[in-house]
Amino acid sequence: MTAKPPLAGITVLDFGQIYQGPYATMLMAKAGANVIKIEPLVGEPLRRRAPDGQSLPIAMLNANKRAITLNLKSEKGRALLIRMAKQADVLLENFAPGVMDRLGVGWDVLHAANPKLIYATGTGYGITGSDRDNQAMDLTIQAVSGIMSVTGMPDGPPMKAGPTRVDFMGGIHLYAGIMTALFERTATGTGRLVEVAMQETVYCSMASSMESYYRTGNVPKRTGNHQAALTSAPYNVYEANDGHVAINVVTEEHWQNLLGAMGREDLRGDARYETMQDRAAHMAEIDAIVTAWTRTLGKMEIFAAASRARIPAAPVRNVAEIMSDPHMHGRGMLEHIDHPQLGRVVLPNSPLRLHGAAKVAPTPSPKVGADNLSIYGDWLGLSAGEISEMRAEGVI
Amino acid sequence: MTAKPPLAGITVLDFGQIYQGPYATMLMAKAGANVIKIEPLVGEPLRRRAPDGQSLPIAMLNANKRAITLNLKSEKGRALLIRMAKQADVLLENFAPGVMDRLGVGWDVLHAANPKLIYATGTGYGITGSDRDNQAMDLTIQAVSGIMSVTGMPDGPPMKAGPTRVDFMGGIHLYAGIMTALFERTATGTGRLVEVAMQETVYCSMASSMESYYRTGNVPKRTGNHQAALTSAPYNVYEANDGHVAINVVTEEHWQNLLGAMGREDLRGDARYETMQDRAAHMAEIDAIVTAWTRTLGKMEIFAAASRARIPAAPVRNVAEIMSDPHMHGRGMLEHIDHPQLGRVVLPNSPLRLHGAAKVAPTPSPKVGADNLSIYGDWLGLSAGEISEMRAEGVI
Repeated sequence: MTAKPPLAGITVLDFGQIYQGPYATMLMAKAGANVIKIEPLVGEPLRRRAPDGQSLPIAMLNANKRAITLNLKSEKGRALLIRMAKQADVLLENFAPGVMDRLGVGWDVLHAANPKLIYATGTGYGITGSDRDNQAMDLTIQAVSGIMSVTGMPDGPPMKAGPTRVDFMGGIHLYAGIMTALFERTATGTGRLVEVAMQETVYCSMASSMESYYRTGNVPKRTGNHQAALTSAPYNVYEANDGHVAINVVTEEHWQNLLGAMGREDLRGDARYETMQDRAAHMAEIDAIVTAWTRTLGKMEIFAAASRARIPAAPVRNVAEIMSDPHMHGRGMLEHIDHPQLGRVVLPNSPLRLHGAAKVAPTPSPKVGADNLSIYGDWLGLSAGEISEMRAEGVI
Repeated sequence: MTAKPPLAGITVLDFGQIYQGPYATMLMAKAGANVIKIEPLVGEPLRRRAPDGQSLPIAMLNANKRAITLNLKSEKGRALLIRMAKQADVLLENFAPGVMDRLGVGWDVLHAANPKLIYATGTGYGITGSDRDNQAMDLTIQAVSGIMSVTGMPDGPPMKAGPTRVDFMGGIHLYAGIMTALFERTATGTGRLVEVAMQETVYCSMASSMESYYRTGNVPKRTGNHQAALTSAPYNVYEANDGHVAINVVTEEHWQNLLGAMGREDLRGDARYETMQDRAAHMAEIDAIVTAWTRTLGKMEIFAAASRARIPAAPVRNVAEIMSDPHMHGRGMLEHIDHPQLGRVVLPNSPLRLHGAAKVAPTPSPKVGADNLSIYGDWLGLSAGEISEMRAEGVI
């Protein structure tokens, strides 16, 4: 066993912005990589929305990184990037397709400068093809990828998933693609152009709806909180006396356990509810039976009863509840950090747990350009005079 | 450059079931790993729901794998697993926490048998902590992780995201964790226990709602298709004359472009809509202005106009539309396969694109136990007699 974290010694040039790119490089930083966040002089877009260039999302996704500024629109800035790329292992960007190529610092140029470099690009629709140049945001990819078509009430409009799920699916796929290329490089010695299109990362998550379409030939409709193909019951979100609780009966044992928990032994052996198929055919009745029970109890009481009885159930929790979750705090997934600009905040660690690996101590998200001196000086070897000249010229 | 795909030579023992585990190992198979799907004699749970043990999700997530059966409840079965683990690089399972330990074939035992083995486990809440033993399904984790609390209409109930988003976030994080451990192993020679808890994989995707809570101290409510913090406009799903379209104005340039596309030059310089803050303060008016335009056009017309004008927009598409998407078919993400049990179906390739790497030709998802002879015989070295004896005894 080594005392070093898994990505110790790996240097990442991080042009990630907003959520997609920064999530990938945050995971790399938490695994011990040397992540250098590179921003335009005014900061990346997420900074510009935030007072003082800091916000909770900035702090969550840019912990354990160092930050420099670089003006890619200046020739000197591009020369600096090429010089940095020669010393780096990974470059990541989630600009619109073609941006880096038009600036003259795309994959071809950087690969020629450093054949070991892995260049990762995250986009909405990909860097080739007829839809390549459509503007892509989390909301629009949720629309075009089918997510909205199956989210929401049957009689309501198509609905987005509230969290920015597409950006984060893109980000974790970027991380996965980079790690695949890093692993391959240990055998070949050569880097790759790694490409992730957000649209493609969410395709498989529609599998249940695709199966329904394949079997019936009918385009799946929205089913509210019911299962996508309407073949499971109970499967819904039920009213508690203080909120809501999700219950998902998967096996016959779950159903028998639920009857016990509800005190409805009278329904054991009832032919209307005997099998999953029977229950799905009586979905409204089933929902009424379950609601008659849940409505009398608090959501945490139902959760506790369901846990005891081995029934898949969970309370619907809000943002305040998840940020203070004792389980995630106890496991070290969440911790309180004193952030120099934001004060005491709750920040996540990496959900990628390699047991026994060395941990990286948390450091707060840096200010824009906070590490110009150490990166351009100590790491790249520029003199103090060169650095201040470039600063004066607006290169950094 | 090598002619081999990136994971050539890596052997995976795949106990993945339903969606989470199989997605991780599907990506490994598409990257060239030798993935051996190991199922109980009756098949994994997703098989049991499907006629003939095949369905579109089975075909999507188990392409390019080989399948064997193994009865872990028999002593001979467990001995077989330990023998296989000695020849494998990765074992993945997404059973409930502790199942493999109780059977006597958990991390400790297999690590002792083969210190190079990477053992990856995917669960809902993790393998430690107070919530560890709660039953976890995609629906229940969507409840407990806060997703439902911010999905749906402001005056409606908490709503799930329609796709099984948690299972797939778990799956891609499992892949990412395994690749991190494989990369680390090239330096250390030793495998790791890799752990992913689905609950933790979706935490960061709530960042926008967390920021809103941090700034205001108010628990974020559901906002329908509006932006989580209600600070952007236009940001919504709008009615077209044949469906819906999502529009997300991010920059002032987008807004100016949209005014042009809508033929509403009269609103340029209107003080009510000058800045994003102004527009967010007049959200209902903004939505009415945009709807007056979108309602007159088809969703693809609006998409085309928005693309020309460089505005982030997209049609809300259904399952049939995404499965036949010419862009994804053109890019090779989707392809038609003649499946021996299912007929001609559309299947995905990996969204992890390593340009220039050798491709893996698609092979259809195998039947339960289809490769018992070749895996137990050719790979593990059992005789034909031993294999038929184990089959007769219900071990395989």
